[in-house]
Amino acid sequence: MPKKIIIDTDPGIDDAMAILFALCSPEVEVIGLTTIFGNVYTDLATQNALRLLEFAGRPQIPVAHGAARPLQVAFDQPAAFVHGQNGLGEIVLPTPIANADPRAAAQFIVDMIMANPGEITLVPVGPLTNIALALALEPRIATHVAEVVVMGGAAAVNGNVNPAAEANIWHDPHAADRVFTTDWPITMIGLDVTEKTIMQADYLAGLRRSRTGAFIDDIARFYLEFHQKAHDIYAAYTHDPSAIAYLVDPTLFTLQRGPIRVLCEGIGLGQTLWDRSGRQWGRPNAWSGRRPVKVGIDVDSTRLLALYQQRILAAD
Amino acid sequence: MPKKIIIDTDPGIDDAMAILFALCSPEVEVIGLTTIFGNVYTDLATQNALRLLEFAGRPQIPVAHGAARPLQVAFDQPAAFVHGQNGLGEIVLPTPIANADPRAAAQFIVDMIMANPGEITLVPVGPLTNIALALALEPRIATHVAEVVVMGGAAAVNGNVNPAAEANIWHDPHAADRVFTTDWPITMIGLDVTEKTIMQADYLAGLRRSRTGAFIDDIARFYLEFHQKAHDIYAAYTHDPSAIAYLVDPTLFTLQRGPIRVLCEGIGLGQTLWDRSGRQWGRPNAWSGRRPVKVGIDVDSTRLLALYQQRILAAD
Repeated sequence: MPKKIIIDTDPGIDDAMAILFALCSPEVEVIGLTTIFGNVYTDLATQNALRLLEFAGRPQIPVAHGAARPLQVAFDQPAAFVHGQNGLGEIVLPTPIANADPRAAAQFIVDMIMANPGEITLVPVGPLTNIALALALEPRIATHVAEVVVMGGAAAVNGNVNPAAEANIWHDPHAADRVFTTDWPITMIGLDVTEKTIMQADYLAGLRRSRTGAFIDDIARFYLEFHQKAHDIYAAYTHDPSAIAYLVDPTLFTLQRGPIRVLCEGIGLGQTLWDRSGRQWGRPNAWSGRRPVKVGIDVDSTRLLALYQQRILAAD
Repeated sequence: MPKKIIIDTDPGIDDAMAILFALCSPEVEVIGLTTIFGNVYTDLATQNALRLLEFAGRPQIPVAHGAARPLQVAFDQPAAFVHGQNGLGEIVLPTPIANADPRAAAQFIVDMIMANPGEITLVPVGPLTNIALALALEPRIATHVAEVVVMGGAAAVNGNVNPAAEANIWHDPHAADRVFTTDWPITMIGLDVTEKTIMQADYLAGLRRSRTGAFIDDIARFYLEFHQKAHDIYAAYTHDPSAIAYLVDPTLFTLQRGPIRVLCEGIGLGQTLWDRSGRQWGRPNAWSGRRPVKVGIDVDSTRLLALYQQRILAAD
């Protein structure tokens, strides 16, 4: 039985790479996409989600339009320097035919989880606003969800917006703290692992033998240019696809458990501060009694890249 | 030529272990002790500093009494559960004969550095209040100091007060941020290395062959009991002596450079947040343009413990 998943997404080049990977992986069944700001504004995220599903020949999968802004902080601006003005590296897909689901993303998430108790895995790969809103609408989703797999955060490494914060968490730290401190089964696939798996330009070019792979190579060009400027590598970190890879084959990852709090003020804003000590602290603190998060701390990158290639080449 | 050092200290069991180590190491010349709250109140720190110098037969070394409280946060209370009510594991040394220097610790530090430009190394092994006050009294000490070697902080590991903060930094985060962001040659010997070097009970008992070693073993009993309760090991982490070991033999340590900011608010209060990425960030942040701190990230514990044993056994 495939895992039923909802990908909460701000496509986004690596979002597109993750969505297409999920759509051609039999281990998961994408039952919906919910959209969020981040790499692009939410309006464009919804349009891009619809475009990607139509590109993949799966227009029947619902897309629910998400929050326009974070819970408390201001939304800075989309990361056009990372993903292009259109969010897909300036590669133009046709205007979508389908419309978004009439429900807001948070309501869609609640409806799906409550109608399929124990069956739905949430896979947020953008800021966590929709997930926090869904928890506010219906707290019982915490006990009815199968799993929550977050792409975001940086547990034992620096962030990517600044030394403290990874972009998805930084965009809505209050929502992220709510999501990480909720008592539900949650796994963090953050920069600790996503920056360890690097797609080189020739690896991406090697995906061109399928139509899906050619599209991924096309959109990745802009992404490689960004990595060249920001990280001094002409290659791409494997952010959002790593969360899908975890669902497809969890044995790719080494995980360690410990509670996470997200810093919501000061120069540490957006840091995912992880208690990996396993200690019984002498005095209660902000981490005390919180459910441990499973955190990806290492990854078999060679196997992950081979898996991704195999699935993308077998796609249309 | 030995390095002239001032140890800023809150004795404290491991402070005593560090001071006695320095006094019997020819690579360093202790030209003064300055005192601070932390493990004990400052008044007791001054009395204990005098006691330790008289125990070691070095009453001529000046002790300057330091700040009674942190710059901005409140002083919580001494760590009597770690160091005992008397700061020395309830082992009683005679009431000191000598008096403290008439100058405040911060003024003493300024006077010594300005009178010996390029020659004095500061070795703060407690909260950094005196060092921040000295910088406020005379900012030119930054260019006249030889080096600053801080025992404190946690760069890539959790703290020991809570998951965010190490005790010395947590007691005065504002002072620590001032010290770490000053443009001077600074090295952090924090929990990343001090918790890697563990003195077992039998190692400590093996020090008893000298009078100094017997005293260290005596005071360490209380410390071992604390470690048993807090860390589930009947053994002691090597905190303050590691800073002295760095001065005696820097090759014991592996260091990595990067700017450090101390979080001064919220649940991350007292965290030493280190940019070890080496990245050129796209947008300026709180770490931008700050002088890199040398951070101890690994240590040859076997050699460190052998060095410490050799020196203590060769002492009186």
